[in-house]
Amino acid sequence: MQSRLEAVAWDGDGILYLDQRRLPLDVRIERARSAEDVASAIASLAVRGAPCIGIFGAYGIALTRAQISDDVAFADAAARIRNARPTAVNLAWAVDRVLQASDMLAEARAIHREQIETDAAIARAGLELIPQGARILTHCNTGPIATAGGGTALGIIIEAQRAGRAPKVFADETRPLLQGARLTTFELAQAGVDVTLQADSAAAIAMQRKDIDLVIVGADRVARNGDTANKIGTYALAVLAQYHGIPFYVAAPRSTFDFSLASGAEIVIEERHADEVSAFGGTRVAPEGVRVYNPAFDVTPGGLIAAFVTESGIARPPYVTTLAPALR
Amino acid sequence: MQSRLEAVAWDGDGILYLDQRRLPLDVRIERARSAEDVASAIASLAVRGAPCIGIFGAYGIALTRAQISDDVAFADAAARIRNARPTAVNLAWAVDRVLQASDMLAEARAIHREQIETDAAIARAGLELIPQGARILTHCNTGPIATAGGGTALGIIIEAQRAGRAPKVFADETRPLLQGARLTTFELAQAGVDVTLQADSAAAIAMQRKDIDLVIVGADRVARNGDTANKIGTYALAVLAQYHGIPFYVAAPRSTFDFSLASGAEIVIEERHADEVSAFGGTRVAPEGVRVYNPAFDVTPGGLIAAFVTESGIARPPYVTTLAPALR
Repeated sequence: MQSRLEAVAWDGDGILYLDQRRLPLDVRIERARSAEDVASAIASLAVRGAPCIGIFGAYGIALTRAQISDDVAFADAAARIRNARPTAVNLAWAVDRVLQASDMLAEARAIHREQIETDAAIARAGLELIPQGARILTHCNTGPIATAGGGTALGIIIEAQRAGRAPKVFADETRPLLQGARLTTFELAQAGVDVTLQADSAAAIAMQRKDIDLVIVGADRVARNGDTANKIGTYALAVLAQYHGIPFYVAAPRSTFDFSLASGAEIVIEERHADEVSAFGGTRVAPEGVRVYNPAFDVTPGGLIAAFVTESGIARPPYVTTLAPALR
Repeated sequence: MQSRLEAVAWDGDGILYLDQRRLPLDVRIERARSAEDVASAIASLAVRGAPCIGIFGAYGIALTRAQISDDVAFADAAARIRNARPTAVNLAWAVDRVLQASDMLAEARAIHREQIETDAAIARAGLELIPQGARILTHCNTGPIATAGGGTALGIIIEAQRAGRAPKVFADETRPLLQGARLTTFELAQAGVDVTLQADSAAAIAMQRKDIDLVIVGADRVARNGDTANKIGTYALAVLAQYHGIPFYVAAPRSTFDFSLASGAEIVIEERHADEVSAFGGTRVAPEGVRVYNPAFDVTPGGLIAAFVTESGIARPPYVTTLAPALR
């Protein structure tokens, strides 16, 4: 693994990955040695970020094929990886692509390399949305460690910083797992970007009182009409942005778009364990046995999204006619 | 202190209070013995809830007067209590009322007794807003321990439960200090109310997918035009409720209304320490030195509020003409 913090790397007889649950306090590199390891690192969110779990899953399939020659056992193991999380489409997309390749490892490497190129193209395309000194609100984490490339929404912000636009970022902490507090502030500070952390519930007053110019987030799955599944809390931000007259943008690679879906109503929303909300670092914060509603994602209607940024450029509404031609 | 959990109680030579920061895991009663103790319990949120800190402050003034005969020193100590938190108007209101009384302790007791009666009247008045089997979303904590009476918004919900309406409540955890997770779920469960805890950022998808019938919250300060300061996150809920066509109600006693203010623009918003967001239970969750925006409250425009519930009944828009006559 190189000196730059890499989310995922193939190392010959296994896959090195950064345990993202421990950041920023503890930078720990682990090795996945089996399909079981890969599926469990994805399910536990040790490896997270829609593009990143796609790449990790792709390497996982190549690793598993090298270990398991029996076709039935291999298919079982591959399915475990493919189904480790249901909402982001990138995982299934990358696994299927590797499964169809004759040289699986070469295909996984190609997916990883393409992600790096894709992220760079997204960053360049998104730059036109970022005015000089823009005050930007973002949610969850969409940086290099979320994509194993340069990042999507954060990649654009970091590109704007490199271009001298001096963006000022308000980062939602992103409950329940605090990817914004732990990862986004860490990556932006490393890139020299001016960043302020806030509770998710402070986004509305930030829009009202801090002159936010735009909101930009990533995505886990986008339907044909632009309906977008992303980290829980995204939908609220889109409604709030509309109320305050602030443009709301989504940055995502082509692999996140699922044209088999007519709308977001068809997207499966993963519900996660109650303990993510009712406990913190092993300490209970709510009474024993309390019922918890813990959807990991929500769906933002395409109608609330001012534009998508992809490696093919900027797509504007009406998405049902603009998205598919731009991305096919 | 009686067997029912009381937030605040006078005990002859001091004020007993429940340390609300430790709930629900640890039910600890502390004793405030001086103005310093009272001011520090309010500032640290050991005692919280706009009506509750008013009552606690009122007892605090009576205690201080009994201890300090020098008028200048007493005025200093009283100011420390009055200024312990800036946003809720109840504290200043109750302190001023006690300061003008000849028998300060009797006046503090009267304020406490009136709060209990007021809360009961709010609960009765609010009942007409709660349909049978209503699915209710609430934020922060507005129950008995927030008012040292029967509660405001939660008081109405508990009254609806007593009346056999079987409400189902979705309680926002309420970052950063988790009053919803720690206190609201605890109080509702004790009252036998069906309660589900969620991250604040899940409120939008709950409105979209869980058939929420109404949102009801408390308040810390209400201006003449109905603009309402309440716990950070309230404003977002009001915008989201409007977007989803769900009525948004505020329950608060008359002492929360500040008719000296024409609008919410004049309300001082307390900003609290970065550590409330960047650390959790002493463990850092964000990089060292990260800047934090941590407003404790936000202001919801009166135009987003379908009705106020007070001890005088229900007030509907336009508030600039309905509120003052109803409450004077």
